[in-house]
Amino acid sequence: MKKLINAPATVLDEFMRGFARANSSLVSLHTDPVHFSRAVPASSPKVGVISGGGSGHEPLGGGYVGPGMLDAAAPGAFFSSPTPDQILAATSSADQGRGVVHLVLNYTGDILNFEAAAELADLEGIEVETVVLDDDVAVEDSTYTAGRRGVAGTIVTMKLAGAAAERGDGLADVVRIAKKANTNMGTMGLALEACTVPTVGRPSFDLGPNEIEIGIGVHGEPGVRRGEMTTADEITDILLERVISDLKITSGDRVLLFVNGLGGTPLSEQFILFNHAADVLDSLGVTIERSLVGNYFTSLEMKGASITLLRLDDELTELFDAPVHTSGWRAGA
Amino acid sequence: MKKLINAPATVLDEFMRGFARANSSLVSLHTDPVHFSRAVPASSPKVGVISGGGSGHEPLGGGYVGPGMLDAAAPGAFFSSPTPDQILAATSSADQGRGVVHLVLNYTGDILNFEAAAELADLEGIEVETVVLDDDVAVEDSTYTAGRRGVAGTIVTMKLAGAAAERGDGLADVVRIAKKANTNMGTMGLALEACTVPTVGRPSFDLGPNEIEIGIGVHGEPGVRRGEMTTADEITDILLERVISDLKITSGDRVLLFVNGLGGTPLSEQFILFNHAADVLDSLGVTIERSLVGNYFTSLEMKGASITLLRLDDELTELFDAPVHTSGWRAGA
Repeated sequence: MKKLINAPATVLDEFMRGFARANSSLVSLHTDPVHFSRAVPASSPKVGVISGGGSGHEPLGGGYVGPGMLDAAAPGAFFSSPTPDQILAATSSADQGRGVVHLVLNYTGDILNFEAAAELADLEGIEVETVVLDDDVAVEDSTYTAGRRGVAGTIVTMKLAGAAAERGDGLADVVRIAKKANTNMGTMGLALEACTVPTVGRPSFDLGPNEIEIGIGVHGEPGVRRGEMTTADEITDILLERVISDLKITSGDRVLLFVNGLGGTPLSEQFILFNHAADVLDSLGVTIERSLVGNYFTSLEMKGASITLLRLDDELTELFDAPVHTSGWRAGA
Repeated sequence: MKKLINAPATVLDEFMRGFARANSSLVSLHTDPVHFSRAVPASSPKVGVISGGGSGHEPLGGGYVGPGMLDAAAPGAFFSSPTPDQILAATSSADQGRGVVHLVLNYTGDILNFEAAAELADLEGIEVETVVLDDDVAVEDSTYTAGRRGVAGTIVTMKLAGAAAERGDGLADVVRIAKKANTNMGTMGLALEACTVPTVGRPSFDLGPNEIEIGIGVHGEPGVRRGEMTTADEITDILLERVISDLKITSGDRVLLFVNGLGGTPLSEQFILFNHAADVLDSLGVTIERSLVGNYFTSLEMKGASITLLRLDDELTELFDAPVHTSGWRAGA
């Protein structure tokens, strides 16, 4: 394992402190229990929006805390759920008296711990609503889930729900937006090479020199099938076809086309996937109304990518375009 | 070579088209000769600022074209200089009658081709000033250079010169800012693992399983020395010490601390370097006035990172904080 670290046991603490120092105008790091909150509270009380999950998916986590997106985040250990007390602390920190939305990626551990935290928050008089995010169309049920997994598209739901809260929407409306985004979102990915979790010390799975895994999970969980390496266009066709079919995207639809890099795949390759996906969508009469390409939801240095479609309407497009000011996603004023 | 491509020969064309489609509100891709220009011209005539160089360093290139940074960029093939006609086209596209600044990374091929382009632009009546960027403190002279190489810090100079041009500074002032930034900037990097250029098909150098190269160039050119893998803190000490000594940074100085990832190194590891560098600077009485961490100047999927310091004063800090709206760097309004 060749990594820029000091010791596996200190990686999490050191990187979080480095992150918080580099982004001190946006995010505050709290310890005991560990969570991130906005450095500057909203100017008037709003619905709180939080998320949480395993580390190793940066900038997911503290990187999406800031105006227009999350109020707080609870980061677990690498690829591990945060604890209920972390989630409770993030919830309390996000609470401004108008309720807090928990955006929970659908992994069994996360679901259980967010549920426990929501009960504790209820005892503290904080109204919590939970929206489970499960955009991965590759597999139903899997290593760590009952039902679909939450993968790259979840960060778009965080952005849209965050924008709704930021403009002053009430709890029910923020929940409605998050559910609408999740329902109209589909993602599918593939991996060329595994990543190595520092505390594990060996790659999370093995792929032969000419082998890829289609439908891979963001923790290296098995996907749909292993197969021989093929062209970017053929891979794009496989991923996109499944997403299109799942969402029943048809001619006349307007979409966000989002290509996400898993960490070790150059931007240039991500743009090659985008280019062919755009050709396919054009040929189907689907309008690419918004685009997003980059390493938004990584799996450490995993090589691979995913393709996400979100069916847009005027409401979702307006929320997508709203200003966001986080270290991982910035746009608008 | 396991990459998300269709064929080595089509990678450049496909990724550039994908990039331009994904960022059509910001950047226009021109072919024959290939260059990028701003999709929306500045509202009133300003000094043009362009750069150019080999592809493979994304988002460097088209990713830094937009308000507050570059007016145009001339991308060469992977790790290869753009041709004079590409640079001339970018120059013409950037010219608004107030002159154009060429920000040239110090590689022999780039220097020659930018010189040729500047002469051609002169014949067309465009006033061109050239600033050579050479922030790498690792080596004097190297595989592709006479003198120092231009590496990660160059993107900060592009941002500062771009901000000066955007606020209306004249040609001489934009040149002055670029030179001031370059003079007060120092960078040093290291690699853990090489990258593979698609058209080459094999890694650009070989490192043993426990070997790193300190002072590596962004094309894999030899650095200062090869050595055994060590801790992130020790690596940070080596890099930072050399930069501090080169710039003669002392107690009371104010700096930008910029940790750049080379493509295949997770953000978490970059923040570990940042964290220790911040500790060292704190202990020296140096104020970290601004911070930047991320994959801003990559070498495809190379594993490694660099540390850059820029000595700040009020003028440079103000330009650093100015709005920038490109696909690779966004901040402010």
